[in-house]
Amino acid sequence: MKITVLAGGVGGARFLLGMRAAAPTDDVRAIVNTGDDMWLAGLRITPDLDSIMYALAGVNDTERGWGRVGETERVSAELAAWGVGWPWFTLGDLDLGAHISRTSWLREGIPLSTVVDRLTARWPLGVRLMPATDDEVETHVVVSDDGVERDLHFQEWWTRYRAALPALRFEQPGLAQASPAPGVLEAIADADLIVIAPSNPVVSIGTIMALPGIRAALQDAAAPIVGVSPIIGGAVVRGMADACLTAIGVETSAEAVALHYGARSAGGLLDGWLADDADAAAVDDLAAAGIATRAMHLWMRDEATSAAIASAAIGLGSAGRSSVR
Amino acid sequence: MKITVLAGGVGGARFLLGMRAAAPTDDVRAIVNTGDDMWLAGLRITPDLDSIMYALAGVNDTERGWGRVGETERVSAELAAWGVGWPWFTLGDLDLGAHISRTSWLREGIPLSTVVDRLTARWPLGVRLMPATDDEVETHVVVSDDGVERDLHFQEWWTRYRAALPALRFEQPGLAQASPAPGVLEAIADADLIVIAPSNPVVSIGTIMALPGIRAALQDAAAPIVGVSPIIGGAVVRGMADACLTAIGVETSAEAVALHYGARSAGGLLDGWLADDADAAAVDDLAAAGIATRAMHLWMRDEATSAAIASAAIGLGSAGRSSVR
Repeated sequence: MKITVLAGGVGGARFLLGMRAAAPTDDVRAIVNTGDDMWLAGLRITPDLDSIMYALAGVNDTERGWGRVGETERVSAELAAWGVGWPWFTLGDLDLGAHISRTSWLREGIPLSTVVDRLTARWPLGVRLMPATDDEVETHVVVSDDGVERDLHFQEWWTRYRAALPALRFEQPGLAQASPAPGVLEAIADADLIVIAPSNPVVSIGTIMALPGIRAALQDAAAPIVGVSPIIGGAVVRGMADACLTAIGVETSAEAVALHYGARSAGGLLDGWLADDADAAAVDDLAAAGIATRAMHLWMRDEATSAAIASAAIGLGSAGRSSVR
Repeated sequence: MKITVLAGGVGGARFLLGMRAAAPTDDVRAIVNTGDDMWLAGLRITPDLDSIMYALAGVNDTERGWGRVGETERVSAELAAWGVGWPWFTLGDLDLGAHISRTSWLREGIPLSTVVDRLTARWPLGVRLMPATDDEVETHVVVSDDGVERDLHFQEWWTRYRAALPALRFEQPGLAQASPAPGVLEAIADADLIVIAPSNPVVSIGTIMALPGIRAALQDAAAPIVGVSPIIGGAVVRGMADACLTAIGVETSAEAVALHYGARSAGGLLDGWLADDADAAAVDDLAAAGIATRAMHLWMRDEATSAAIASAAIGLGSAGRSSVR
């Protein structure tokens, strides 16, 4: 079976670990958000692609929740002495190996999708990673800082300010001119199942879907589309997606996010939706709206719980397709 | 007194340590060779400037003879896993701090001379470092490899092959179009003393002198020009400069190198020359050729011996100017 997952960083990584375990003989492809990417210290940084690559390779720092395990920061200390980079955004030594390799290839004119192929070839990941686009689309956040509007790079807002400054809107210059990376539209068109990982619905999944051609490809896809709620009991599982949802006027609830994606039968994208048991009350409402919804434990505590969720998404996909469409 | 030193990497660094000690209240400027510079792993590497910066800052590895003290190679191991860079050219973690900072500034369009000002501002070096040029001039070596001509980057020939493949000639594309960096011609014109450090006469000093305008500026300079022999007793002190001299048809001897630079009174560059005691036999010959020559211990074992040599160069400068010109 061909399974295509739309994914952001950490939530996407955990879900993909589960999908790999749940579907070991299937062809799993991940279309990964690149909206958090940036240039820093002359290096191209791709946080979501790296989080997923490291997690699937088993070299991620599970305790800290990001970056490489056994990481050190000797280079960063040097950069700080020269005032290069952002003091609040760590470039670990091991991590820099990827940043430098990636940047050297990009500077040679090699597209990001090929760069990702080269980087991921180092490990048997079991999932093919594809950047959503080879084009540079960065996310900026216009915030209100004591009543004054300021434009921040998404990473500055997210990592430096922990999304504490209220976001007025997101801006993604270049998005309208960007194209899906090679293979992305095909991976949507030829899939037997499409899953929206429990990632940030606005800046991760929203950015992938906003790339010209992707929403239409999803709507035209033969495969059922199943989403996994990133909201449990009215709160984000991890990160600060609630601040992003608020900025676009969507309530932080499993139901609201599902309705934000929309029922495929009503011009939206979802055939099915996995909500947490804590949000079971929304199941009937969403079913009435045309989204086959199942409630289950959605906390991805380890690979086993992630695999159970992935299995449920696969199950709902086959059920959802026949029941809803 | 304004003292301007033309310098290559390690020999230049040792000499400048001595000059700083010998002339602590003088204004010492170093015009540093950039002919060994290169792009590697998407980073701009400037070996000679770094060797001198680290030595003057006291953060160099005196035991190993190059790079930073306390260096590690965690990033390099990552790069090697991805096949990025040259396995035989180490990019140390601390060293990478300089490479990444430099490259990020160069990519912003900041000229190398300003980049050097920013990098060196971190420490009170006591010597102002100037790249010979802001333009990218790289040195290639055409070698004979089993009778077949091959073109290698200088660093490949020097570091990977230890200059063991016979060099047929050096090529420096872009040299004729390059310009001296801002301040370089002024540092020659307004100097009270110009010293040619005991660096590689071909690829270090030769490259500086070959930049359009520099040879003429040296010939027109009001200051005496004193050279320090990089050859002791018919052998190079360090490195493989003999292989470079052979390639340009110059014998590996203190006398031949002095005559290669030439007597200023005969259209060359030298007013004075410091040779080692082992080469004292050449003193009369060189004096007859118009180069005031003094023999002394030229081994730069430590800062004290380097300072003695620098002092002798200063002394010979004042003497040489009146006696020769």
